[in-house]
Amino acid sequence: MRVMGVDPGLTRCGLSVIEGGTGRKVIALDVDVVRTPADMDLAERLLLIADAAEYWMDTHKPTVVAVERVFAQNNVRTAMGTAQAGGVIALGAARRGIPVAFHTPSQVKSAVTGNGTADKNQVTAMVTRILGLQTKPTPADAADALALAICHCWRAPMMERMAKAEAAAAEQKKRYDAKLKQIRKEAAVAKKG
Amino acid sequence: MRVMGVDPGLTRCGLSVIEGGTGRKVIALDVDVVRTPADMDLAERLLLIADAAEYWMDTHKPTVVAVERVFAQNNVRTAMGTAQAGGVIALGAARRGIPVAFHTPSQVKSAVTGNGTADKNQVTAMVTRILGLQTKPTPADAADALALAICHCWRAPMMERMAKAEAAAAEQKKRYDAKLKQIRKEAAVAKKG
Repeated sequence: MRVMGVDPGLTRCGLSVIEGGTGRKVIALDVDVVRTPADMDLAERLLLIADAAEYWMDTHKPTVVAVERVFAQNNVRTAMGTAQAGGVIALGAARRGIPVAFHTPSQVKSAVTGNGTADKNQVTAMVTRILGLQTKPTPADAADALALAICHCWRAPMMERMAKAEAAAAEQKKRYDAKLKQIRKEAAVAKKG
Repeated sequence: MRVMGVDPGLTRCGLSVIEGGTGRKVIALDVDVVRTPADMDLAERLLLIADAAEYWMDTHKPTVVAVERVFAQNNVRTAMGTAQAGGVIALGAARRGIPVAFHTPSQVKSAVTGNGTADKNQVTAMVTRILGLQTKPTPADAADALALAICHCWRAPMMERMAKAEAAAAEQKKRYDAKLKQIRKEAAVAKKG
């Protein structure tokens, strides 16, 4: 599974591509940060980001695009820009028929460090170790984009198993309910007769 | 000036096109609301909205696209979706070289009703009157999209005059400063001599 990780942002947007193997094996293929100037027109900034992300999709042909799910942060203005950057990238993926998955920051931190409230340094250190990189990826947005892709690689099979287990449980409950109904019906008939 | 007004949203996205004439004369050309189901994949919802908005841009060929500027609302989740819908539409405009302008809800309300805190009914009533419509536009998202386009038509010349006035004032100050410097220099020379 080839995963493109996106740490969305207007000023700095982290992009990464990793290849997930069997088990927890992951290999980094590419990582970069797209920057747009703060004094540029918002629509133009979104265009730069979308163009860069779509070029990556067309070049690396990821199986899935994993994007950080944005919540209201301390700075609402930043959160809006982040949501918009994530939105245009999700659109680019949808136009190419590539599925898009969203993971929250705490899911990402939890996946790579085992701690949902880990700080940026811990995330960067674990990403460096997991991928066996020679140097720490900088800036933090690059590390975050890699962490996001790793998180998706590791969570995807679990999410799939969870969905299957839930479906199986629902099916079992349906059969049980049907059986119970049948038994009650037979009991009622026996009583009457 | 042909203005496309956008009241962004994931569940309901209002689109309108109006033609602005001389003075405050405005004519409604089209209005509609794009809906996407809440249980649909986010990327797919953005794709539906972007496709609809881009079809409008290619059909109506607006001079400018006016989008509501999103602020954190009571519901943060809704605000994020709204920001993303606005983002993909701004991207579509940027790809076509159409300028995008953002107006805040209070600027829109203020422009059409004279009151920045007017309620939805007041906005709808004024939009109906200003455009001389036979019936009230519904749902509120349709009226909001029209209000946004009207707001842009009326604010644009003012914004342009403001920008010109500011540029003229800056130019005048520059000339004044240069003159002052020259006078001081001459005075210093006269003193010495």
